[in-house]
Amino acid sequence: MSSNYANDSLALHMDLYQINMAESYWADGIHNKKSVFELFFRRLPFGNGYAVFAGLERVLDFLRNFHFSESDLVYLRDDLGYKEDFISYLKELHFTGDVYSMVEGELVFANEPIIRVEAPLIQAQLIETAILNIVNYQTLIATKASRIKQVVKNEVVMEFGTRRAHEMDAAIWGARATFIGGVEATSNVLAGKRFDIPVAGTHAHSLVQAYKSEYEAFHSYAKRHKDCVFLVDTYNTLRIGIPTAIQVAKELGDKINFIGIRLDSGDIAFLSKEARRMLDDAGFPKAQVVVSNDLDEYTILNLKSQGAKVDVWGIGTKLITAYDQPALGAVYKIVSIENDEGEMEDTIKISSNTEKVTTPGWKKLYRIIDLENGKAEGDYITMHDEDPASEKRIKMFHPVHTFVSKFVTNFEAKDLHAKVIEDGTIIYEIPSIHQVRDYAKENLNLLWDEYKRSLNPEEYPVDLSQKCWDNKMRNIQEVQDMVEDFSNE
Amino acid sequence: MSSNYANDSLALHMDLYQINMAESYWADGIHNKKSVFELFFRRLPFGNGYAVFAGLERVLDFLRNFHFSESDLVYLRDDLGYKEDFISYLKELHFTGDVYSMVEGELVFANEPIIRVEAPLIQAQLIETAILNIVNYQTLIATKASRIKQVVKNEVVMEFGTRRAHEMDAAIWGARATFIGGVEATSNVLAGKRFDIPVAGTHAHSLVQAYKSEYEAFHSYAKRHKDCVFLVDTYNTLRIGIPTAIQVAKELGDKINFIGIRLDSGDIAFLSKEARRMLDDAGFPKAQVVVSNDLDEYTILNLKSQGAKVDVWGIGTKLITAYDQPALGAVYKIVSIENDEGEMEDTIKISSNTEKVTTPGWKKLYRIIDLENGKAEGDYITMHDEDPASEKRIKMFHPVHTFVSKFVTNFEAKDLHAKVIEDGTIIYEIPSIHQVRDYAKENLNLLWDEYKRSLNPEEYPVDLSQKCWDNKMRNIQEVQDMVEDFSNE
Repeated sequence: MSSNYANDSLALHMDLYQINMAESYWADGIHNKKSVFELFFRRLPFGNGYAVFAGLERVLDFLRNFHFSESDLVYLRDDLGYKEDFISYLKELHFTGDVYSMVEGELVFANEPIIRVEAPLIQAQLIETAILNIVNYQTLIATKASRIKQVVKNEVVMEFGTRRAHEMDAAIWGARATFIGGVEATSNVLAGKRFDIPVAGTHAHSLVQAYKSEYEAFHSYAKRHKDCVFLVDTYNTLRIGIPTAIQVAKELGDKINFIGIRLDSGDIAFLSKEARRMLDDAGFPKAQVVVSNDLDEYTILNLKSQGAKVDVWGIGTKLITAYDQPALGAVYKIVSIENDEGEMEDTIKISSNTEKVTTPGWKKLYRIIDLENGKAEGDYITMHDEDPASEKRIKMFHPVHTFVSKFVTNFEAKDLHAKVIEDGTIIYEIPSIHQVRDYAKENLNLLWDEYKRSLNPEEYPVDLSQKCWDNKMRNIQEVQDMVEDFSNE
Repeated sequence: MSSNYANDSLALHMDLYQINMAESYWADGIHNKKSVFELFFRRLPFGNGYAVFAGLERVLDFLRNFHFSESDLVYLRDDLGYKEDFISYLKELHFTGDVYSMVEGELVFANEPIIRVEAPLIQAQLIETAILNIVNYQTLIATKASRIKQVVKNEVVMEFGTRRAHEMDAAIWGARATFIGGVEATSNVLAGKRFDIPVAGTHAHSLVQAYKSEYEAFHSYAKRHKDCVFLVDTYNTLRIGIPTAIQVAKELGDKINFIGIRLDSGDIAFLSKEARRMLDDAGFPKAQVVVSNDLDEYTILNLKSQGAKVDVWGIGTKLITAYDQPALGAVYKIVSIENDEGEMEDTIKISSNTEKVTTPGWKKLYRIIDLENGKAEGDYITMHDEDPASEKRIKMFHPVHTFVSKFVTNFEAKDLHAKVIEDGTIIYEIPSIHQVRDYAKENLNLLWDEYKRSLNPEEYPVDLSQKCWDNKMRNIQEVQDMVEDFSNE
């Protein structure tokens, strides 16, 4: 291998600048100042109306195990030149902070804090890269899966993308994320083993090629496998593939469960209709038509509009890579830090890209649910010392177009953050993946259909409280004053 | 965690159908038939004129360790219902075949075999998913990096994408792939540790926010770090960020190496020119301008055409996710299998998507290099018993448009495959990552510039030998005859 270091730790899975900043904090003795960081994204992916949060389980696992191994420290010292004093400090470092987070399966929107870390500055800083890496990918894929399910509606979706996933972790954790998003099964066996999710798959073209004919291959397959889906496009789908599948199914009768056939090439709209007709005519009305071949929500929508007869959609590349937008841009920003007097003080980042201006302060996030119709009216971001649940009437207004506002009464204000880590210890009971998936499904019932449309959905309101807005404006003004003062010096 | 199984093996990182096919092969006693599979892709990514192969080191590691752990077997038996007899067989299974492969850093084109596996059928089948997963991603990213370097030319490129990579493996192996493709360094420390590649990075906005002012933050940073790149866009780049960086650099003089400043938002063309002017005017003509902010080869080309003054390009999301085409569609197809008489027999997959028709038979691949000018004339695929090196004159013709042909003389025929595994044992001496990177760079010298253009490059010829072509046509004819016979039965 390329390096002599043991592959025994994930702690260095971070950008180098985190360590450089950590060293400065430590050298100046401000490393243990209490700080608050928030993780959020600025835009929903795929033009979708919502996202589905996933990644918490892996984040918790990362934080629980966060420490530098002996080989990490040797590398930092010998190869990168960090000094012994700092290395000694890092040796003892663990995560001791608090973490508040949405739970997996929660619906999430732009500009709302998904995870809030309250920890000594140095720790909150050092964990940034890993948790962004985890949440960005898993949330992206759970969202893509949910979006596809909105279009598919009643049929089954299977995740077949491992070979095109971005290396192994993406295949495994991606399969898990698609399951959270509503997909029914994955082809990846390791994901099945590790996460207790259903796995699916029968055979490929190579089976047919190894036996030279579909007739032999299907018979051979059926000898050891009761549930049979025969792949029919190795040579010629309509002239030999489907007729052979039907022939074998008839010959074997009750000896197998003839689940159906799979199409992996050609015109799916045409072939699926032909397949349906042939199966029906042959007396197999319950045999399913499984299709795969570079599908996504757009092709599915088109195929459906052409009357394609599909029972199971196998979706690979476009799902596991989030092909049309393969990155969620979540960021992790400091919003508050202890001052020299031991009080928490807000902090803001200004940018000429206005969407990059952060919302300062230690905040909370509520989902405002109308008690009459059970639907979500919007999300509501407050300062940490506000409690909308205790109010009878709240004013919600758009965080950019502030003239758009409404008063809401008769609501439930659901706190979207659970305390998952306290003083470095996980206090959250991790639900089963099936519970997570059910939770995501239930959450979708809170949303009006207009937010769930795949093209041009309505924008779900994510509003700031008056106090939160005023605080943001005050912080911006302070920075502007500072810039003015600097220029005039 | 979601499952009670130990996370102790990668063997199940495969699609379920591989195991189902394996079981059929085994039950029928054909599992040890010698088979030949080839890994190739059908189209170059990004509209690029070439790809850069990466992934072999990880493939070798996977094959060396390939076996089912105790927990894998328990899962297959207890959760998925495979029978004890087959489980017992799997328990002893290791990879015992031969593997021929391009070496990492080799330039590769569409429809040529990158890896050829010659192994017992069941083994060759079971390793498919993992090696596709590895090669698809790493080759994609090495290619994207190389493509970006073609546009950047003389400046430095750093890979900053970890937070947007598709989970951890993608960040780590992706960083390695970008280095092979020509990028100079990564921000990912773990990639540096594991692969001995340079890491880079200084500080983020949070450092400035933690110290409340850039002046304090830069000074503090400089106390522990001699090499300083100051990030100048936390509050206002031109009015406070750059002036402060210059002020601190002047105050500290020789105590630091003032490497330069980094811009992470705003209009890079304008700001980089202003920054250059301000640094020059202040007496820092060698201070570098580092830029980042959602860059890729298209924005770089545009920024350069507007005269942007950039010394170092930090590229994140668009590189590590291959944003504009996040999947390489490499496939792995059986091309030859032992028949009942113990002879190798070709096999083909026909498809109504003509590009999915495979080229049958056990083949070899040569790069034809013109000895006069040292440039590659094209690649040449032959049957395994042909030897173009022994010929004085070869006829190369286009594998689709066969009327396009040329005779080549005075050439070197470079065999592009190395035998890397023999009887299951790795016999290839893995080069250092630096050697791989140098090799990729040298290879680019073999190509005319016309193949290296980022938009609409010339199509590099990948031709079949006459024998190979004739063999493909014969195989297609045989299948067509079979379909006719079947229909007439």
